Amino acid sequence: MKPKDKASSSALPETPNRRQFIKQAGTVAAGAALAGEAKLWLPRVQAQEKKKIGYALVGLGGLSTNQIAPALQKTKHCRLAGIVSGTPSKIKAWQDKYQIPSRNCYSYETYDQIANNPEIDVVYIVLPNGMHAEYTIRGARAGKHVLCEKPMANTASDCVAMIQACREADRQLAVGYRCQFEPHHQACMNLAREKTFGELKMIDAGFGFKIGDPNQWRLKGDLAGGGALMDVGIYALQACRYLTGEEPMAITAQESKTDPVKFAEVDESIVWNMQFPSGVLAYCSTTYAFGGINRFHAHCDKGWFSLDPAYSYGGIKGRTSKGEVIEKVEIDQFAAEMDDFAACVLEGRPSKVSGEEGLKDLKVIEAIYTSIRTGKRALVAG
Amino acid sequence: MKPKDKASSSALPETPNRRQFIKQAGTVAAGAALAGEAKLWLPRVQAQEKKKIGYALVGLGGLSTNQIAPALQKTKHCRLAGIVSGTPSKIKAWQDKYQIPSRNCYSYETYDQIANNPEIDVVYIVLPNGMHAEYTIRGARAGKHVLCEKPMANTASDCVAMIQACREADRQLAVGYRCQFEPHHQACMNLAREKTFGELKMIDAGFGFKIGDPNQWRLKGDLAGGGALMDVGIYALQACRYLTGEEPMAITAQESKTDPVKFAEVDESIVWNMQFPSGVLAYCSTTYAFGGINRFHAHCDKGWFSLDPAYSYGGIKGRTSKGEVIEKVEIDQFAAEMDDFAACVLEGRPSKVSGEEGLKDLKVIEAIYTSIRTGKRALVAG
Repeated sequence: MKPKDKASSSALPETPNRRQFIKQAGTVAAGAALAGEAKLWLPRVQAQEKKKIGYALVGLGGLSTNQIAPALQKTKHCRLAGIVSGTPSKIKAWQDKYQIPSRNCYSYETYDQIANNPEIDVVYIVLPNGMHAEYTIRGARAGKHVLCEKPMANTASDCVAMIQACREADRQLAVGYRCQFEPHHQACMNLAREKTFGELKMIDAGFGFKIGDPNQWRLKGDLAGGGALMDVGIYALQACRYLTGEEPMAITAQESKTDPVKFAEVDESIVWNMQFPSGVLAYCSTTYAFGGINRFHAHCDKGWFSLDPAYSYGGIKGRTSKGEVIEKVEIDQFAAEMDDFAACVLEGRPSKVSGEEGLKDLKVIEAIYTSIRTGKRALVAG
Repeated sequence: MKPKDKASSSALPETPNRRQFIKQAGTVAAGAALAGEAKLWLPRVQAQEKKKIGYALVGLGGLSTNQIAPALQKTKHCRLAGIVSGTPSKIKAWQDKYQIPSRNCYSYETYDQIANNPEIDVVYIVLPNGMHAEYTIRGARAGKHVLCEKPMANTASDCVAMIQACREADRQLAVGYRCQFEPHHQACMNLAREKTFGELKMIDAGFGFKIGDPNQWRLKGDLAGGGALMDVGIYALQACRYLTGEEPMAITAQESKTDPVKFAEVDESIVWNMQFPSGVLAYCSTTYAFGGINRFHAHCDKGWFSLDPAYSYGGIKGRTSKGEVIEKVEIDQFAAEMDDFAACVLEGRPSKVSGEEGLKDLKVIEAIYTSIRTGKRALVAG
């Protein structure tokens, strides 16, 4: 652990350009927050590339390569400014593809030097789960705002440390909960809040897929922190939390492992129940053993609404008990997530998918694992 | 409890006509069992009304009135021979409607005299759950075969007593699990057995409805034995058992009660998980608080199949991951159930929905209630 003063002293570098940018942005922050329209942020500043929030991607695996880097090209207020990787050949390929100058390229050893790079505002941690805590904390101490992929970390205590580090460094911290920016999911949150189908009473939700390569990091306990539950079950858990707007009180769960070799270190399939303070019950599932579960169904007093598929990058389909299709424009969820975090950074306000949000999920996930281990109903840590 | 010899002595009365009928039927029992075609049972007997298996309905509530009596008219091998009710005006109305002679009408006090009535072969117990055990046992001791509505009884120990009484009286006992005779359900059982979509891995299943009249017997603890779980959750439980062909080993469950006045004596909403020996996990729900849950979804290694609605008297819809609709002819499930039991009676063979099958469900239901009460994973009694 580095001393606190180092974290503070490495906060956002104050170059003239950056100071001017932030000052100009700051004058319209209130208006932007009200209007919710990103283009209001910088009314007097030309939309020059260098004025966009600079993202460095930490970890250049499949998600960065296939989703996040392309999504950055679609953002309004972000740009791919830098990369961090342990593989020089990847660095070279990305430099060529995205015209990234060498001064913005880092290895995991040189990562902390990002503190001296004014072109990078945000580090987006796209590493295996078990590395999220370290690289979030180092990023914050290097003065960077941190967007961290889900699950936020392997443990709730790691989440607490990450939140603490970002708070000490006065940096924003958000978790890559892309679905919370997705219009179908947002429409469903509204249907729940507005009680369009009456009181929400029960939710069934599940997400799983058949995992391939047996050597991938998702199957290693230390890197993944858990199996299907940590990786994709968390989407079903998130849905239950943002549909109810509540935290579950009590958890019961069971695990099944039909391939104990492949899943020696992580969970294969889990089903779990949650009870919420309002009386809503949720029954949920996750798996690495087969595909096809990708939904939530919100059962209300006077009807229902549902997404299936729910958690994919695209092609989300919604229906209601009125026979309606929930029709919303399809967006790039990663682009929306990154633009939103850019707004949070500019406006100096916490993200709705803050570190605290990520911590809440890890507390529930730990209760699920506790219930499986003990065979008892587990209370979610307060 | 009546003495055992009385039960034995009151077995099927041996009138000349009846003996002749059974003898003729017996000669083709093996062929009928192989062909599975009811018309083979009685090849040399004209399909006269009096040759049909005579059913007496015990309890003339909504289910008897609206479903079972009309279904009897659609059966091939059954006839509505008698009725048992505590309400003289109902007796009168049914006599008028179905031309039932007074000699075949009983009150609950005179019920045991049914032993002397050769026109009645089967008593179909359509009383509140808490009365199933008594009227099944009295029916068996009166020498009648017994078809008993689900749930079989309030407790597993009552089920054991019912099975024992029918065994001692050498009478067949079956439970009114109509879905097991329904073509969509049977098609799904075949999809599971034949592994059409690969190995079955997980099932989600639920059934619930919004209960009306707060004064009905379904909300009384002694009459109902439980709430939504006993009444309709049992369909979801059944589906999990007949899709896997296995008995669940371990149960975890949670209950929610949002209206503690209406549901003072019985459960309102329950979610539960089950683990099966093969590793299949099930996550299930039941409720009296809202409508709309009426499905099972069988998740397999290479696809899925699903019914939704699944447990209704009609209108069942099936789909698979191949984009197919599971198209089957719609039947009267009660008629099929009663014709099947008539075949069992004629052939002297146990029903596939025997008392043992009903007992298995009660053991699981008791484990669900135990898990709710103790907060612990409950093992299903062996």
